[in-house]
Amino acid sequence: MTVAVIPFKRKNPKTRLSCMLDESEREGFAEAMMLDVVAAVKQADCQAVILGTEPFESEDLVQVAMPEKGLTDALNEYLPCALSSVLIIMADIPLADEASVKRVLLTEKDIAIVPGRGGGTNVIFIRDPSKFRVDYYGGSFTKHMKIAQEAGLAVEVIDSFRLHTDIDEKEDLVEVLVHGTGKSRAYLEERGFTLTTEKGRVGVERKR
Amino acid sequence: MTVAVIPFKRKNPKTRLSCMLDESEREGFAEAMMLDVVAAVKQADCQAVILGTEPFESEDLVQVAMPEKGLTDALNEYLPCALSSVLIIMADIPLADEASVKRVLLTEKDIAIVPGRGGGTNVIFIRDPSKFRVDYYGGSFTKHMKIAQEAGLAVEVIDSFRLHTDIDEKEDLVEVLVHGTGKSRAYLEERGFTLTTEKGRVGVERKR
Repeated sequence: MTVAVIPFKRKNPKTRLSCMLDESEREGFAEAMMLDVVAAVKQADCQAVILGTEPFESEDLVQVAMPEKGLTDALNEYLPCALSSVLIIMADIPLADEASVKRVLLTEKDIAIVPGRGGGTNVIFIRDPSKFRVDYYGGSFTKHMKIAQEAGLAVEVIDSFRLHTDIDEKEDLVEVLVHGTGKSRAYLEERGFTLTTEKGRVGVERKR
Repeated sequence: MTVAVIPFKRKNPKTRLSCMLDESEREGFAEAMMLDVVAAVKQADCQAVILGTEPFESEDLVQVAMPEKGLTDALNEYLPCALSSVLIIMADIPLADEASVKRVLLTEKDIAIVPGRGGGTNVIFIRDPSKFRVDYYGGSFTKHMKIAQEAGLAVEVIDSFRLHTDIDEKEDLVEVLVHGTGKSRAYLEERGFTLTTEKGRVGVERKR
C-alpha cells in the first residue's frame, strides 16, 4: 500500500488569505483543505500520514512530527527508510479527488509528478523511495525533473488541474467554490463566501 | 473530422500584460499562443478555424470573421449549421498539446468541458452541435454545465492543467516558461524573459 505523506502547517497558515479570513479561520480552512486531501488519498487506497509542524487532535489520522530542519530535509530522511512506494501530496489542493490521485498512482513510470502553480510540485509519486530525494525550495518542479533524470528514473508529468490548483490567494477561492465538493468548500460557504460576477469576471465576496 | 474553432482577438489583446509587453509585443505574443493552440489541435487531427475580430496574414489558416455581435452570438449562429462535431478552444492556452486535446476529443459523453481559471470555459467539445448553445459571459463553466444538463446531454469535465491555464497576467508567464514547449515560450525567451527565484517563490523578469 502506498503511503501518502501530507505536510501540514497548523499554526497561522495561508497568510495571503488574511484579507478574507482571520487567523483562526485560516487554521480551520487549512485543516478543511487537508481533510479533503486525506479523503482523496484514502479513496485512492493510500495510507495517509500527516507530517505536521504541530500536532492536532484527531482520532483518525496518523501524525508524524516534522523536525525543525524543514520539509525537504525531513522527507529526505524519511525516503530511504520507507518500506513502500510514497506519495507526497500538499495539503492545500482541496480539489484533489479519487480519480486524479489514481491517475498519479497508476503511472507506469518510476516517478509521477503534478506541478503546482508557479513552478512548484504539488504531488509526487515515488515507486522506489530509496532512489529519489526531494528539493522543495524554489522552482521545485524543474528540480525534481532534474533529480529524476540524474538518477536514471523515468518520469510522467500528470496533467491535472485538480491537483495543480493550490489555494493561496483570494482569487483561488473561486476555484474551491466552483469545483470543490468537500469540506473546504463547505467551510467557505458556511462563512458566507459566494461567487460574484462583475464585468464578466468571476470573483468571490463574503457576506457577514 | 472535428472542426476546432479558435476565437482570436488580434488588436490590442491581453492588456493585463501591459506591464511586461507593449502593444505590438502583446499582439505578437497572442499570435504565438494562438499558433501553439493551432498546432495542438492539428496534431490531434482537428481542422483549425480562426474566428477573428480582424483578419491577419496567413497562408495556412482558415479564417472566419467574427460578427460584431460578439463571441457568444457568433458561435450560437454557427453551431446549428455545423456539419461535424465542434471543439471550441481558446487562443490563450499555449500549454495545450496533442495529448490533452485528444483526451477531450476521446470523451464518450456528448459534451466535454475543460474549465479555465476563475470559472471560465477554456475548451468545449460538442459532439452534436445542433443540440447545444454557448454562453461565454461571466462564470461560463457553470452555465455550460447547466445548459448541457437542461438539454439532456451527458458531460465529462476533463481534468487538465495544460488546458486550464489561460495566460492573462504576469504571474501566468511563469507557467509558459516552465511548461511551454512551443512558439509562445520561444517568443518570451527571445525577448529576454527568464525565471527568477526570490524567497523560494518563482517569478519572471525581463532582461533588456
